[in-house]
Amino acid sequence: MPLARISIPAHLSPQLARVLADAVHAGLERTCGVPTEDRFQLIFRLPEEAMILDPHFGDVSRTRNASIVEITFLRGRSDAQKRALFQSIAKQAEAGGFASDDIVIALTENSAIDWSLGRGLAYQDL
Amino acid sequence: MPLARISIPAHLSPQLARVLADAVHAGLERTCGVPTEDRFQLIFRLPEEAMILDPHFGDVSRTRNASIVEITFLRGRSDAQKRALFQSIAKQAEAGGFASDDIVIALTENSAIDWSLGRGLAYQDL
Amino acid sequence: MPLARISIPAHLSPQLARVLADAVHAGLERTCGVPTEDRFQLIFRLPEEAMILDPHFGDVSRTRNASIVEITFLRGRSDAQKRALFQSIAKQAEAGGFASDDIVIALTENSAIDWSLGRGLAYQDL
Repeated sequence: MPLARISIPAHLSPQLARVLADAVHAGLERTCGVPTEDRFQLIFRLPEEAMILDPHFGDVSRTRNASIVEITFLRGRSDAQKRALFQSIAKQAEAGGFASDDIVIALTENSAIDWSLGRGLAYQDL
Repeated sequence: MPLARISIPAHLSPQLARVLADAVHAGLERTCGVPTEDRFQLIFRLPEEAMILDPHFGDVSRTRNASIVEITFLRGRSDAQKRALFQSIAKQAEAGGFASDDIVIALTENSAIDWSLGRGLAYQDL
Repeated sequence: MPLARISIPAHLSPQLARVLADAVHAGLERTCGVPTEDRFQLIFRLPEEAMILDPHFGDVSRTRNASIVEITFLRGRSDAQKRALFQSIAKQAEAGGFASDDIVIALTENSAIDWSLGRGLAYQDL
């Protein structure tokens, strides 16, 4: 039950948006044990003036393609898994046409009881 | 002080969007002791390709109307309250025209000191 | 590594949107020790019917300019810092043309290991 909110500049092609979305989910599968089918992603296309992102903070060089990936998922992933997740997402995004400097990722955590995937049922009870 | 972010497919009517928003707030009132007036909701209408949602994960059948409800609220609701909240939202959404399989809900929690409802004041100090 | 999501009514001018974004970042700098360059903000312009905000809850009078500021940042700021942050944001927004009653703020917290600012690196490892 990760939920990813991906905010990208509106000038990026739908293909490139999909590249990033695919990279995010592949990273979750490879490093955090998320099933392939457990995919829930929202993509927000924002005009340039709606993404105010410092060009260099964090010792990188961001371009106008810089994108923000927010992932909410279950508490309990190790620091090593999070490090591997960041690397996996950036690497696959880079292979698909992004600069890896342009991928900013923020994680927030919740608990199993905090999810309902439908039908009004708590995921924990499935 | 719950804040709900409701992401729905752009093809849904404004009426149906409102049905879901009303169901979310009614659920919070009925199960979590949220006052009627304590309503803060944002609705994001997204094109089909911007909502990448697995059609079956969680043992349901999602349609192209599948919608995501994210609620940030105060830490401290019990598991029983969260279960009741999921059921209440799905049931009222269903009564208003949604399939209950189409309602995905994710909760995140914070503290009273994390809210200002205006005037630069911490809600905790009111 | 704060990330701010700022949701404003679409009728607000780009100038006023920027006033609020600047107020949010200046507040983080002044009260929470955030560097000037550590700025990551997303602005969502929403139509009136997509912002369902009670006009009075919290003992204020909201207008149709009411806006929602969500900030995700590192765990560890004191209650006093959060109070000062709310005051700083509201005060500067007011100086720039907002009513301070119109500024709703919600904070959520995560950890240093939850951020990658680019290149697939954990910020914690920089």
